[in-house]
Amino acid sequence: MSKKNVLVAQSGGPTVAINASLAGVIQGVLDSEKYDTIYGSIYGILGILENNLMNLSEKVSESKNFLDTLKVSPAMYLGSCRYKLPDYEDDDATYTFIFNQLKKYNIGAFFYIGGNDSMDTVLKLSHYGEQIGSDVRIIGIPKTIDNDLCETDHTPGFGSAAKYVAATILEVAHDTFIYSVPSVTILEIMGRDAGWLTAASALARNDYNTAPHLIYLPEVAFDRQQFVSDIKAQLAKRNNVIVAVSEGIRDKAGNYISASTATNDQFGHSQLSGTGKCLEYLVKEEINVKCRSIEINVLQRAAAHCSSLTDLDESVMLGRQAVAEAEKGNTKCMMTLNRISNTPYKCEIGFAGIDHIANEAKSVPREWINEAGNDITPALLEYLAPLIIGEPDIQYKNGLPVYLPVEHLDTGK
Amino acid sequence: MSKKNVLVAQSGGPTVAINASLAGVIQGVLDSEKYDTIYGSIYGILGILENNLMNLSEKVSESKNFLDTLKVSPAMYLGSCRYKLPDYEDDDATYTFIFNQLKKYNIGAFFYIGGNDSMDTVLKLSHYGEQIGSDVRIIGIPKTIDNDLCETDHTPGFGSAAKYVAATILEVAHDTFIYSVPSVTILEIMGRDAGWLTAASALARNDYNTAPHLIYLPEVAFDRQQFVSDIKAQLAKRNNVIVAVSEGIRDKAGNYISASTATNDQFGHSQLSGTGKCLEYLVKEEINVKCRSIEINVLQRAAAHCSSLTDLDESVMLGRQAVAEAEKGNTKCMMTLNRISNTPYKCEIGFAGIDHIANEAKSVPREWINEAGNDITPALLEYLAPLIIGEPDIQYKNGLPVYLPVEHLDTGK
Repeated sequence: MSKKNVLVAQSGGPTVAINASLAGVIQGVLDSEKYDTIYGSIYGILGILENNLMNLSEKVSESKNFLDTLKVSPAMYLGSCRYKLPDYEDDDATYTFIFNQLKKYNIGAFFYIGGNDSMDTVLKLSHYGEQIGSDVRIIGIPKTIDNDLCETDHTPGFGSAAKYVAATILEVAHDTFIYSVPSVTILEIMGRDAGWLTAASALARNDYNTAPHLIYLPEVAFDRQQFVSDIKAQLAKRNNVIVAVSEGIRDKAGNYISASTATNDQFGHSQLSGTGKCLEYLVKEEINVKCRSIEINVLQRAAAHCSSLTDLDESVMLGRQAVAEAEKGNTKCMMTLNRISNTPYKCEIGFAGIDHIANEAKSVPREWINEAGNDITPALLEYLAPLIIGEPDIQYKNGLPVYLPVEHLDTGK
Repeated sequence: MSKKNVLVAQSGGPTVAINASLAGVIQGVLDSEKYDTIYGSIYGILGILENNLMNLSEKVSESKNFLDTLKVSPAMYLGSCRYKLPDYEDDDATYTFIFNQLKKYNIGAFFYIGGNDSMDTVLKLSHYGEQIGSDVRIIGIPKTIDNDLCETDHTPGFGSAAKYVAATILEVAHDTFIYSVPSVTILEIMGRDAGWLTAASALARNDYNTAPHLIYLPEVAFDRQQFVSDIKAQLAKRNNVIVAVSEGIRDKAGNYISASTATNDQFGHSQLSGTGKCLEYLVKEEINVKCRSIEINVLQRAAAHCSSLTDLDESVMLGRQAVAEAEKGNTKCMMTLNRISNTPYKCEIGFAGIDHIANEAKSVPREWINEAGNDITPALLEYLAPLIIGEPDIQYKNGLPVYLPVEHLDTGK
């Protein structure tokens, strides 16, 4: 039987581990006796629709450090997209086109590395493929800094983002503690629906650092007056209070805190200010104290120079194992990480049917948040701790980290 | 002649190199045959006024990695202050108290590590000491991420901040280039009066990365319509445009761009939005394109895990040499870095009289900015490039950088 080729793509928001999974898939194909050439689809599923593919086998053979550098490079080497496939009952033509493309390139397996929305694409393509009797294996490989995918203990990209958030809180604590003047510092952390990443701020606590002193997650309804009381209670105990807050906190009625501070810009248009900025205004209004808010912004998903080696290693393994599962005939599934033990930390690779993953989200369990709703429990800290361990070997040139060139994405018009 | 003791303090805003200079001063005293115990004043000059001193000689002897860890730790181990000494013509009592304290602790030399305002303190104490015939040597050791101190080629702390800014721009570029949808990303960088740090964003450019595509410094009057034209011209050439802008840009009339977007918060009070946010609104209003602004915030002065080894090494040397100069009898001066050559990079330690340093600031020369005022010249890039070279050996524990404990600053009440 002649060898088939492989297609891989990346989708959704960036993480620093999504290229590590790509490196794993490529390595899996290089090691495979069943698969031949590996193609990458540029800009996620759009590359297939627009016939924009890249021969990754050639790229690897051209550059000897390709896979090592790819593993530590942030964001998506192949580019990304935010494209939702139509339902195939409504639009059969898109699906016909995609499966014709797979046939044209002699594709035996398609791997889609992404988050919730990308698993929706895996689900739809799997179902359609099944319906038309296609033998193309379709497997999802998870990634998201939000850590909110079901069926997997945690998601690739989360551990590195958690490490960055914790390191940032620690460094901001050093920055804040230097003044004897009382102050409140609020850090706004990503995670619109799940508080996993905000919870990771607690990893910054150590023998001498007590920050963050308060933690607010979207899983608990946010109460402004309680928040003000919490801050006052902390200020009675120490000069410099540091708060970690999720961008997604909502009040009892379900309204985002950020949305409640609509302000008018210079053109008279309504603009939403961020959650951290909103709480900064609240503190300044209710308590006579110096207050600063910091939005960590995209750096928490892009700072590859501060990645977790545990995260990158697991991401590579998921990619390699995905190829092995496809070889065995598995399809219509997403690769998963299954934690065996915490001490010592041990995690195995598995897979789960895609039906129960796409379009569902995993929140922080209420029992992992303290009763007052302003901190996390030791059990959650124990879950988080192993995920940020280890530092990858990043090369530096001219004082800056060396990442894989992406000039094919910074295109002229 | 019996040995004298040494007093050292830190002041102003944090950098990641100000502890390296402290480590240098401590090492200098340990190596000295003239000086005995070294005391640290907690919270800058306030520690002397409030009798809050720490015996650093004891600290060093208690912990074997003290100096190595101190060198790589962010912010001020001794805490800081924003305290301006009164003129001694107005308030002789404060000066009498300070010099009595110096006498009480048998201080032979006082080192103040800080920026512009701290050099004002060095100036005033020097003048007063001269007037009363004190033989205490008083020497300033520069630091500021703004790089705006006179008489020195560059300032400790700037190289590391520059490295962080450049690494961040590079990582944001990777994060931004993944989408085929046009976008504008604006990074707001610290530097209210001088554009050195914003200029350092250009160090992110390499073989494949063209970002930042536009750079705006406070040294050139900012024109909103020209800015919109610049963005449009860039969007005609590429999908994803990245802009580096100083927080301190002003229009022709001298008004801060940030201040012109006063908005009303939820309580009806006027709030100033940041420069980046202001330009984001402008782009959204004038051009129909996705736009995001990112305020790098305090991380550019606190991210010790991304320090420049060149910066830290020079900072240590400045501290050591300051002690040597005091031993030789020099006083009333600030230590300086004097660049000998660019390739190979060579820098010598010197010192300059304090009179012409305090309360003056060094801007980016106009000839180092391009004619259009939206980029820097190769000559400025050549000046900046050597300052970010090298990575210190940071230890990690539980996945996070190991810094020197500052529990003495996170005090209860």
